[in-house]
Amino acid sequence: MTSQVWASSQEPVEGLGVAQPRWLDAEEQKAWRAWLYGSMLLADRLDRELTRAAGIPHAYYEILVQLSETPGRMMRMSELADRCLSSRSRLSHAVSRLQEQGWVRRQVCESDGRGQLAVLTDEGFAALEAAAPIHVEGVRTHLFDQLTPEQVAAMRDIGETLLKHLDPQTTTAPDARPSSSSC
Amino acid sequence: MTSQVWASSQEPVEGLGVAQPRWLDAEEQKAWRAWLYGSMLLADRLDRELTRAAGIPHAYYEILVQLSETPGRMMRMSELADRCLSSRSRLSHAVSRLQEQGWVRRQVCESDGRGQLAVLTDEGFAALEAAAPIHVEGVRTHLFDQLTPEQVAAMRDIGETLLKHLDPQTTTAPDARPSSSSC
Repeated sequence: MTSQVWASSQEPVEGLGVAQPRWLDAEEQKAWRAWLYGSMLLADRLDRELTRAAGIPHAYYEILVQLSETPGRMMRMSELADRCLSSRSRLSHAVSRLQEQGWVRRQVCESDGRGQLAVLTDEGFAALEAAAPIHVEGVRTHLFDQLTPEQVAAMRDIGETLLKHLDPQTTTAPDARPSSSSC
Repeated sequence: MTSQVWASSQEPVEGLGVAQPRWLDAEEQKAWRAWLYGSMLLADRLDRELTRAAGIPHAYYEILVQLSETPGRMMRMSELADRCLSSRSRLSHAVSRLQEQGWVRRQVCESDGRGQLAVLTDEGFAALEAAAPIHVEGVRTHLFDQLTPEQVAAMRDIGETLLKHLDPQTTTAPDARPSSSSC
């Protein structure tokens, strides 16, 4: 595969909207694959450890985090899906599971009567507070403990560069992402 | 949430297996979140573009890539799941979808009669070849075109550091991951 599909020597494939594929050379491939597999393994490890120790998959944890950071701890379902990079149907499924746990409830948006809000309950916030030490220990052990200060700085720099390209509304500080919990 | 659950000033939570949580300070939080959201947005963008243009979700593409790189273009289902960081049930579901497309077939492992192999078909390899230019263009546009050579080097360095920690069997070059297609 490596030599046949990725390498720079391959003939271009016509009719696919990419006239002249800019194949990765061997060094670029190594960089891309190290990043891809490293990111995947980190996400997988954090997810498994958090699920085992706190009973919360990482994707659900992120939903609780997003809700906890808004005024009133509530957000439109559509915005929540956007912020969690989730499809509407997948987010709806996740919120249903979180509802069963008593951690989130749904509420009709009063201002327009159509939109639906997801609201973090006190129990949900408590669950998040209980899970946070486990999560942060995973991030420490598997990321920060492994990296030098220079690598941490580079990690942030690369992350912010990607955010600027992929989510231009974001400022350079990702925790400054705008949030509108009003409806 | 930021100040309440992540900050270093928070009181430790007892009885959760993490006696003294090593909270992230403000700068560490920014680095972690930039990396997390940057990685998530990149994965999401590549997945959506590949699905729209080639009809292959990125996770399925990775399955085809893994199979294409083994001798005989086949792999035990269990190993394939490990290499794709997938649960057995999720991998089985994905392989069923790829079977319906005619891109993968299942085959009983002849040497022990118990294990099951996933085999990349010629049609599957052709689909991979057709999708590769689209995928590589996405990786170029959304990653390499955004980064300086120094950032690319740092990205590889960070990725390889994570791989060494999370997957010690891997050498420093991730494409040198051992593969055993024999059964």
